[in-house]
Amino acid sequence: MTLDDAQTLQEITLCSDAYEKALGDNDLSALDAMFWDGPQTVRYGVGENLYGAAEIAAFRRARSGGSPPRTVLRRAITPIGTESAVVSLEFRREGSTRTGRQMQTWIRTPQGWKILAAHVSLMAEQPETQRPAL
Amino acid sequence: MTLDDAQTLQEITLCSDAYEKALGDNDLSALDAMFWDGPQTVRYGVGENLYGAAEIAAFRRARSGGSPPRTVLRRAITPIGTESAVVSLEFRREGSTRTGRQMQTWIRTPQGWKILAAHVSLMAEQPETQRPAL
Repeated sequence: MTLDDAQTLQEITLCSDAYEKALGDNDLSALDAMFWDGPQTVRYGVGENLYGAAEIAAFRRARSGGSPPRTVLRRAITPIGTESAVVSLEFRREGSTRTGRQMQTWIRTPQGWKILAAHVSLMAEQPETQRPAL
Repeated sequence: MTLDDAQTLQEITLCSDAYEKALGDNDLSALDAMFWDGPQTVRYGVGENLYGAAEIAAFRRARSGGSPPRTVLRRAITPIGTESAVVSLEFRREGSTRTGRQMQTWIRTPQGWKILAAHVSLMAEQPETQRPAL
C-alpha cells in the first residue's frame, strides 16, 4: 500500500476543489452528492455532531446562508493506496482571526469518490501545551 | 470495497481501546508508535496543527501532564475495505461541560495499524444553524 499514488492524488485534488466551490456556492445538491449516502457517514461540524447522510443533509438545509465564506490557507492530501484518501486543510473565515481546520476521508465507490468522514473545527486560541481547553 | 468488514472492525476496536489507554497513561512511546512515522501524518489538535510524525512527537513531549482525562461518550468505527478505517468518537474532559470530538484515519502497514490522520476539537456551544462561530 502506497501513500503517494499520483493518479489518486490528482483525482482527490479535483474533488477537494469541487467541494470548496460547492461549499462557497452553498450548492446543497452538489454537497449532498459528495457525501457517502449511508448510515456510516460522520460529520463533526464546528457546532454539531452528525451521524449518517440524512442528518448531514438535514443540517445543511437548516443552515441559512450556508457556510461562512472562507479562504484555504494550507492543504495536504494523502492517498491511501488507490481506494481512499485524506484531505487536511486549514482555513480562515471572513471576519475571523481564528484558524479553522477541515479533515475529510474520501472513499472510491462505484458512484465516484465520496466523503465517508469529515471533521470541521475552529482551533483554540492557545496550544494545548500551555493550558488545556475545557 | 465494503464498509463493514468484521475482522477489520475487531482489529480497529482494539487499536482504539489501546489508544485511549495510552492517552490516559500519557505513554509517549506507545502513542508515538501508534502514529504513522512519516511526513504525511497530520494531527489537528484542540489548539495546534501538526504536520509529520516528528512535530506530533515533539508536541507530546512539550505537553506537561499529557492529555486531560476524558470519558468516551460515543464511538463509531467504519472499516474501509480491509486496509484502512475511520474512528469517530465524542468525549468529555473531566471538569468540562463541552463535548470533544476525535476523528482518526488508520492504515494497515507492515508494522501494524497506524494513525495517518487525526483531528481533535472541542465543539462550539451553539450549532452552526443558529450563529456561525468566527
